[in-house]
Amino acid sequence: MTAPLRVALLGCGTVGSAVLRLIEEQSGDLAARIGRSIEVVGIAVRRPAHHPDVPQHLLTTDSAALVRRDDVDLVVEVIGGIEPARSLLYAAFEAGKSVVSANKALLAEDGPGLHAAAAKAGVDLYYEAAVAGAIPLLRPLRESLAGDQLRRVVGIVNGTTNYILSRMAETGAGFAEALAEATELGYAEADPTADVDGFDAAAKAAILASLAFHTPVSSADVHREGISAVSATDVARAAEIGCTVKLLAICERVPNGDADSVAVRVHPAMIPTSHPLASVGGAFNAVFVEAEAAGQLMFYGQGAGGEPTASAVLGDLVAVARNRVAGASGQGPTGYADLAVRPMAETPTRYHVSLDVADKPGVLAAVAQEFARHEVSISTVRQTGRGDAATLVIVTHSAPDAALSATISALRDMPAVRGVTSVLRVEGLS
Amino acid sequence: MTAPLRVALLGCGTVGSAVLRLIEEQSGDLAARIGRSIEVVGIAVRRPAHHPDVPQHLLTTDSAALVRRDDVDLVVEVIGGIEPARSLLYAAFEAGKSVVSANKALLAEDGPGLHAAAAKAGVDLYYEAAVAGAIPLLRPLRESLAGDQLRRVVGIVNGTTNYILSRMAETGAGFAEALAEATELGYAEADPTADVDGFDAAAKAAILASLAFHTPVSSADVHREGISAVSATDVARAAEIGCTVKLLAICERVPNGDADSVAVRVHPAMIPTSHPLASVGGAFNAVFVEAEAAGQLMFYGQGAGGEPTASAVLGDLVAVARNRVAGASGQGPTGYADLAVRPMAETPTRYHVSLDVADKPGVLAAVAQEFARHEVSISTVRQTGRGDAATLVIVTHSAPDAALSATISALRDMPAVRGVTSVLRVEGLS
Repeated sequence: MTAPLRVALLGCGTVGSAVLRLIEEQSGDLAARIGRSIEVVGIAVRRPAHHPDVPQHLLTTDSAALVRRDDVDLVVEVIGGIEPARSLLYAAFEAGKSVVSANKALLAEDGPGLHAAAAKAGVDLYYEAAVAGAIPLLRPLRESLAGDQLRRVVGIVNGTTNYILSRMAETGAGFAEALAEATELGYAEADPTADVDGFDAAAKAAILASLAFHTPVSSADVHREGISAVSATDVARAAEIGCTVKLLAICERVPNGDADSVAVRVHPAMIPTSHPLASVGGAFNAVFVEAEAAGQLMFYGQGAGGEPTASAVLGDLVAVARNRVAGASGQGPTGYADLAVRPMAETPTRYHVSLDVADKPGVLAAVAQEFARHEVSISTVRQTGRGDAATLVIVTHSAPDAALSATISALRDMPAVRGVTSVLRVEGLS
Repeated sequence: MTAPLRVALLGCGTVGSAVLRLIEEQSGDLAARIGRSIEVVGIAVRRPAHHPDVPQHLLTTDSAALVRRDDVDLVVEVIGGIEPARSLLYAAFEAGKSVVSANKALLAEDGPGLHAAAAKAGVDLYYEAAVAGAIPLLRPLRESLAGDQLRRVVGIVNGTTNYILSRMAETGAGFAEALAEATELGYAEADPTADVDGFDAAAKAAILASLAFHTPVSSADVHREGISAVSATDVARAAEIGCTVKLLAICERVPNGDADSVAVRVHPAMIPTSHPLASVGGAFNAVFVEAEAAGQLMFYGQGAGGEPTASAVLGDLVAVARNRVAGASGQGPTGYADLAVRPMAETPTRYHVSLDVADKPGVLAAVAQEFARHEVSISTVRQTGRGDAATLVIVTHSAPDAALSATISALRDMPAVRGVTSVLRVEGLS
């Protein structure tokens, strides 16, 4: 066995330190699997004093110099965020080094540019850890299903929001209360914006859609709604119709002759409790895939955490290291399809709507007329209560999202409607 | 775009004709993904007259000549069975052609030899379709989890037996009756031996274990029990304790200091209905994976059928074609670990046992004494009925399989035991 492959580690937080530990613990196995041993020769951190457990001579604050060092063969980036990660990756490629990254935000913002730079340099860019932590998902989409036509990818890809929604369902709490609990228990960060407003899930959706449909999709293309507007009433209404509320990342190919488009969105939705995604709890993620020939597939596992994420990073590290040993680079994704992104307004969805109405003759007819006026067809109507406290619960058929939201606006203005108490999209109902 | 890559198809049954159709239907996408178009230039079949729908000029009965033809770049083998498939694969490698195979029996019998021949020739051997049909499983095991340490792979990998066991649970039917129904409906073949006796699952288990543990495991290493001895009583007993009976393929790494071994087995077992594998029905397959860092993962999808299997074949075809275009070969599995296979007798399992006993003082003590004599610890005992018709239902703790089966033999010889009415292993109970 020849000289070891030398790795630069950028970032040494929860994931980085797990990567470091696994490389050390499994050094024999990794060497056997790769054909050469792996040695970490530098670790870039912002504050070396915060890392007393790491060999101090490896620490540096000069990440830009580290990725260019001649004695570095491979770069592992677990800093996260756009800068300085983006500049460091481009610098690494320019210096001829393959990169393993866990950076969903960066890949979702600049995937095509980064892939082009890696391809130009003849090196690899792998990022399995960026979506759904330990679940092998990107390689299956990119390679295993490369001979199939994907229709739909639907996933629960954010653990924080999944925890909050689960607690709301279990305890009847509102969003604010459940978020406070999640923060206290460490399931939500001090600034929970990236999670609860759907930014994290949207970045993952962009990456999934790009790979699934062989077309460039960035975060900006993803329609994004978070869970802060989900109310205890929404969750209770979902339970009444045998559903549960989940934050879904949905990537669809919309057939349209020779001009197919893609629709990519993140929003809370009611799904039937019988749906396999409904029972995915807490820290777990799951992704459903529908393909023409393969049919339905599901991938399930831990979506976050140091060790699971490090497992995905190490898998990629073995792959790029083996490619390096073989003097080759792996097969990157293809973005040949260049499909248009369909705006949310035109994307077909279904709504579940609860209205407080006066129980007078003609109210249901007037409400139904409003749906009809927007060409939204109603699937079911249920009326509960009588007199002043009557409630209409309506589930629509599929219609363009703009028509549905226009209907809701119109309903709010109807004199017979005292209040629209719950509006949520519905997925997976037959 | 340069000249097409030329493919020889060996076999044109359900899977082969689906492969042929998909290559045609998706020719544009495949070309874009590969960088060159794909053209099928020959199809080897035994009886050309049986394939009226296939371009007749492509048909040949001389498969040995086809794989060696100079105008063939890649070989897809969907014949199945050991010969002539084995000789054809070796001939293809010698002629410098990469191979995509769906042949579980052959890979389970001769995986290391075939991989060595492919590596020597610098070509690829891919076989995602050999295990669990459309589910991307082998590539994740081989690549995505290459930086992790796998502990356990447990799967439902045979649809025929899964259908039969499901029907037994639903209708209370015995094995023979459920098999007859499966045969009538086309879920079981005229000769169901390969499925119901566990040969099919054992081949898949061998392949899974080889990849999961980086060690050569062949079908002959797999302890194999089919489902023909599963009785309606077994299924009813399982339901009484909140379990369901499934045929499981179980691959475990058994820690033992520096001399870890692997245990690979296929047998029916009771699993709790709350276990994710319990709800896997009919034609679906699912595989649970436990890894040190990644934790629990599950893969779910269609395990058989022409289109799903063809999806897996096409995914591999894209991979080997891209490698061919790049002038490289992909990363094969590594078998460096060379772990010993632990015999079934020494493998720890748990039993569920039902005994018809006389309800007399001292019977339970005598039975318990028999377990103790074999150093088998009892987890739960439940006695139902009184007098002549008393039944003891015992679930053991984990013990070496030989100790458990010796206990059962001894119980059969006890005067106080009128009959051992049900014996089945238990998995996944806490």
